[in-house]
Amino acid sequence: MSGYSFTVEASDGEARRARASFARGAVELPAFMPVGTHATVKAMTPGELDGLGVRILVANTFHLMLRPGAGVVEALGGLHRFMHWERPILTDSGGFQVFSLGARRSISEEGVEFRSPIDGSKVFLDAERSMAVQRSLGSDVVMAFDDCTAYPMDEARTRESMERTLRWAKRSRAAHAGNPGALFGIVQGGMYASLRERSAKGLREAGFDGYAIGGLAVGEPFDERLRMLDATVPLLPGDRIRYLMGVGTPEDVVEAVRRGVDLFDCVLPTRNARNGYLFVPWGVVKIRNRRHREDERPIDPACACHTCRHYSRAYLHHLDRCGEILGSRLNTVHNLHFYQRLMADVRDAIANRRLDAWRRDFAERRAAAEPTIES
Amino acid sequence: MSGYSFTVEASDGEARRARASFARGAVELPAFMPVGTHATVKAMTPGELDGLGVRILVANTFHLMLRPGAGVVEALGGLHRFMHWERPILTDSGGFQVFSLGARRSISEEGVEFRSPIDGSKVFLDAERSMAVQRSLGSDVVMAFDDCTAYPMDEARTRESMERTLRWAKRSRAAHAGNPGALFGIVQGGMYASLRERSAKGLREAGFDGYAIGGLAVGEPFDERLRMLDATVPLLPGDRIRYLMGVGTPEDVVEAVRRGVDLFDCVLPTRNARNGYLFVPWGVVKIRNRRHREDERPIDPACACHTCRHYSRAYLHHLDRCGEILGSRLNTVHNLHFYQRLMADVRDAIANRRLDAWRRDFAERRAAAEPTIES
Repeated sequence: MSGYSFTVEASDGEARRARASFARGAVELPAFMPVGTHATVKAMTPGELDGLGVRILVANTFHLMLRPGAGVVEALGGLHRFMHWERPILTDSGGFQVFSLGARRSISEEGVEFRSPIDGSKVFLDAERSMAVQRSLGSDVVMAFDDCTAYPMDEARTRESMERTLRWAKRSRAAHAGNPGALFGIVQGGMYASLRERSAKGLREAGFDGYAIGGLAVGEPFDERLRMLDATVPLLPGDRIRYLMGVGTPEDVVEAVRRGVDLFDCVLPTRNARNGYLFVPWGVVKIRNRRHREDERPIDPACACHTCRHYSRAYLHHLDRCGEILGSRLNTVHNLHFYQRLMADVRDAIANRRLDAWRRDFAERRAAAEPTIES
Repeated sequence: MSGYSFTVEASDGEARRARASFARGAVELPAFMPVGTHATVKAMTPGELDGLGVRILVANTFHLMLRPGAGVVEALGGLHRFMHWERPILTDSGGFQVFSLGARRSISEEGVEFRSPIDGSKVFLDAERSMAVQRSLGSDVVMAFDDCTAYPMDEARTRESMERTLRWAKRSRAAHAGNPGALFGIVQGGMYASLRERSAKGLREAGFDGYAIGGLAVGEPFDERLRMLDATVPLLPGDRIRYLMGVGTPEDVVEAVRRGVDLFDCVLPTRNARNGYLFVPWGVVKIRNRRHREDERPIDPACACHTCRHYSRAYLHHLDRCGEILGSRLNTVHNLHFYQRLMADVRDAIANRRLDAWRRDFAERRAAAEPTIES
């Protein structure tokens, strides 16, 4: 019923080179999804995203149900038509955003009540409502409604939250019936391997089209995150997509791919772009820094993106200092290109069974100083 | 020495269909120049401007001399290379921006001293410095340094300011020697026809490559503006470009073209776009208005711009409400397309000697309600 297929085409250790086919197009995996919170990936047109090689993006159920409202989007023909993006869209469940509200929410077995951050009105969200909203949006990949656990949290409360997420996942599954979109379950369990195990097992028994790992990148150290991936990924079925939610840095992505993760999303490339943090093979260029004021070189002389082909660091520095929209645009193009290129390199390395060697080179380059050839 | 030629190809009453050829490309006249204050037309790439048919744009001497500094731009190969725009650029003299500083400036015969709005430092600008900065920028059309008169102002002080502008124009002309760019003089004289006459005569005697009309659109009523145009335009030589600075609304532009003006610049289409005021044949669509929340129609169903071809009013309304950069982008594309189309229509009407009939139709459409065919 899910309307999509998933095929592993090659593997290298635990890493998989795979392909997901949806009614709206195919996605080569591992893949990174830019985040389009309000039905727009900030500063970008859909045509530009397509040109960068983006084949699937994320939109936020929570934000869109509040504004403009799921009914408005549905009446206008669904999210794809609304935002003029014809390829697949994954929608989150709203669980993580509700979690982010902190004290302004109250959780019960039934669902979550919170105050709208837009107008202060009371809103109730549960598994059934989340499924209905995501159906109205016309999502290609629907996420089960989950309860995301804060970090740090004691084991008893983490267990309670994880068990609730399992029950909500089953309710989501029932409410999803008849929707041609894929439905992914979300593993929770905080930083407790035994709880992660219980969560993964419960989800597998219920059966989902794909499996996401939630509750990471919530403040825990890098090594904790890797430990949880080590504990969780092997428990997920090999013939389904594995999606690590809200992650992350290039290093995070590479380490998760090595452990068998196929799909990622994060605001990092787009948000950092708007703040002038530009990803480069040797780390980051902080374009706001005065040292770039008269630098005629592109961000990265070896980068093939539109920004690096046409604009100097001095110009990008100037746009940033002036708060110009074009600066946000050009920086976003560069950072998304960096992530798209990163994923293409990772896919090639897996296909050629040389991911470990590629990763060592990558880590060395990222730790090194800027190459001086061009200066 | 000016490196450009100007040819009147057709006329209709006082209106001229003309062509200006610069080393960096030709411009069909009458033309409207978008404003690129900080070396960027806000929210747009140069490629998008080119695609919209923009053939010349304005950059601001005042802003660029303060940030990033004329020396920085020159060291980086000039303004065209800096901002990646290969077609002609007209730079203003800085006079109008200094005028806009109000109390923070002091004017003497020598020039103007003011506090930088960026860092509070003392800055001095005079005719020679303005010419040097515009030369460093690599401007195709350099504007003489002028003293813009506030509105309202008594005749004695307006005369003093106008005479000073004439002396500064002659100093500008001397300092411009050896610069291959064109140099335009600026007629001042406030709302006094006799002073405008004296200003135009003095500039003609000195001799410039083109003649601008300054000191309008500074708060005076529409009819006053037209009266000054009527008094000024006939005194400008017929074989030179006539440029009305800082103007204006579509109605302003049409009325000035009828009186023989060839060139315009204004922030109106770009600034209004970012505030959600979208130009349409029947007036304006205020996209922020709640009535557009579920409207699946484009801004103007008859408009061929990228925005109208792909996006609904509902989506643009949503982007505006969310403060999304894409909203500023799509709105700017639409408004600039409206102005480009307006100028193309005006040029066609002149070439076909039917400007008066076209103007009546245009005014009727602008005054009418939105056509209801599509709703």
